[in-house]
Amino acid sequence: MRAIITGIAGFIGSHVATEMLQLGWDVTGIDDLSGGFAANVPEGARFVQRDCCSDLDDLFGEVKPDVVVHLAAYAAEGLSHHVPNFNYMNNLVGTSNVLSAASRFGARHFVFTSSIAAYGHPSTDSPLTEATACHPCDPYGIAKLACEQHIAAFRDYYGGPDFTIFRPHNVFGPQQNISDPYRNVMGIFFRCAKQGLPFPVFGDGSQSRSFSYVDVVAKCIAQSPGNAAAKNQVFNVGGDRAMSINELVDAVAKAAGVTATIDYLPARKEVLHAHADHAKARAAFPDVYRDAIDFEVGLKKMAAFVQQMDVPAPTPCPAPIEIVQQLPPSWKNV
Amino acid sequence: MRAIITGIAGFIGSHVATEMLQLGWDVTGIDDLSGGFAANVPEGARFVQRDCCSDLDDLFGEVKPDVVVHLAAYAAEGLSHHVPNFNYMNNLVGTSNVLSAASRFGARHFVFTSSIAAYGHPSTDSPLTEATACHPCDPYGIAKLACEQHIAAFRDYYGGPDFTIFRPHNVFGPQQNISDPYRNVMGIFFRCAKQGLPFPVFGDGSQSRSFSYVDVVAKCIAQSPGNAAAKNQVFNVGGDRAMSINELVDAVAKAAGVTATIDYLPARKEVLHAHADHAKARAAFPDVYRDAIDFEVGLKKMAAFVQQMDVPAPTPCPAPIEIVQQLPPSWKNV
Repeated sequence: MRAIITGIAGFIGSHVATEMLQLGWDVTGIDDLSGGFAANVPEGARFVQRDCCSDLDDLFGEVKPDVVVHLAAYAAEGLSHHVPNFNYMNNLVGTSNVLSAASRFGARHFVFTSSIAAYGHPSTDSPLTEATACHPCDPYGIAKLACEQHIAAFRDYYGGPDFTIFRPHNVFGPQQNISDPYRNVMGIFFRCAKQGLPFPVFGDGSQSRSFSYVDVVAKCIAQSPGNAAAKNQVFNVGGDRAMSINELVDAVAKAAGVTATIDYLPARKEVLHAHADHAKARAAFPDVYRDAIDFEVGLKKMAAFVQQMDVPAPTPCPAPIEIVQQLPPSWKNV
Repeated sequence: MRAIITGIAGFIGSHVATEMLQLGWDVTGIDDLSGGFAANVPEGARFVQRDCCSDLDDLFGEVKPDVVVHLAAYAAEGLSHHVPNFNYMNNLVGTSNVLSAASRFGARHFVFTSSIAAYGHPSTDSPLTEATACHPCDPYGIAKLACEQHIAAFRDYYGGPDFTIFRPHNVFGPQQNISDPYRNVMGIFFRCAKQGLPFPVFGDGSQSRSFSYVDVVAKCIAQSPGNAAAKNQVFNVGGDRAMSINELVDAVAKAAGVTATIDYLPARKEVLHAHADHAKARAAFPDVYRDAIDFEVGLKKMAAFVQQMDVPAPTPCPAPIEIVQQLPPSWKNV
């Protein structure tokens, strides 16, 4: 059984590849290395450097994948306001291009990582369920929701491939890129802790998120093509541990063994509280959730990963900034 | 007061330009002429041939438009399944590109033509209101909804430009391109009547639509930047006259003075019944609706337009077909 994983050199992609190799899949991965690292690709997987918007027919025609797991994305949600054309190209046209190639060469299942950003401004204070109406409020979330709709419309029109869509949120763990100044608040905090820098916090730090250790996310994704309960379904996936950004500062500082100072930056427009309900994923992947690594243990694994690494150079945005107006000053200096 | 109209050489664009010139606007129009005709551009408007995905800064910087009316789109809804990458580029990246240029040079109002396709498979049998949940089911409708969300998110994030969004449906009238084999069922029927060809009907012809003479649509669009009730609003716009495709065959044949024969083609996947409620547009544009040309009169104007014209050569899809699987046989021969 052959799988193609896009974004295999990225954080989640490398974990999914490891899981799928363990499940016995023949894994080919592509990545443009704009945010990931070739060193992340696990042994046993074939790696081809490639952009998801490029012509993929040669590779897909050669591999003839049974399953395509499409993880590649430029996932800097806040920055997506400032690179809207690039965001829609990379995330939506890229997804359409990968899905068309998957279909053309007979893939029977397409796994897609959407995002909690698809919900946007929630219409409810309760945790978001998969039935909650989506009102995305930034180009990244708009593109992710459009991708979800495209994948479902494609299956309806062409009769396949089947799909599973995941909406993860604030995933963290080893292999995470801690040098991207535009995304992954936890990675940014760990980098600052390691470099002795103040932690940057937009606004007063009262905005809250639920953080997800990578194991649950990667295992659900890797197991979904073989799980009948996941066929043509959308799942929230991740951890339940909700905390404010201020509480995250304390948790990271403690795990990293530092005393944090905070650099409070002007608030940016963002969703204040985003928390997902995981009952559906728990029911479809009970073993994964039963064995999940809890937040505190995950944080220790993340701290150990960061401690042993050399901090990479800052990862630039792979495209020119299209709109500099209202760019947070801390991003202007990157 | 300066306006830039994209798609000015197209059917609706040329009518909007005429209306805005009459209202005293200084009008510059762009069009890539992939579906429109330079001859449609009304006297008094400046015309620049240009693709909406290209760099627009020189032109927008020179004109510094107060208002941008973005009508350019590749609106072949059924074909969008077969050109998904092109559809998302042209409709979503194109709209993002035009909006960014509009904002960069100080436009205070952005008018966008979405489509009834944004609703997709209706969750109700009642006529669609602007509050009806959108579940688009083809790439064209998915792109249009994403554009709407992008325009609203852009205003929310950057504080402007204000916007008005219209969702027209099945618009017809003089200046319509009757030679596009992929769209505009009424135009196709009139062309067949003129050429003595059978009328092509997908399925049994029981699917129904409401047809809209162009005057109401063009006038609401042209008047919206100066109408406080239209600020940051979404409107269904068009006619109320619902009919099945079989009934449309009879109506066009009668208007054209021919006896129609029908070429029944295999059904394609499409929304069966799509009808919009126009109460909101009637309330915001009461004079336009009061003076609206009714369906029968509009049909006569359309017939007169077609009678005096030379039928243009068939308009090809401006991009290569990306997925030929399930392409209707009648489209394969184009």
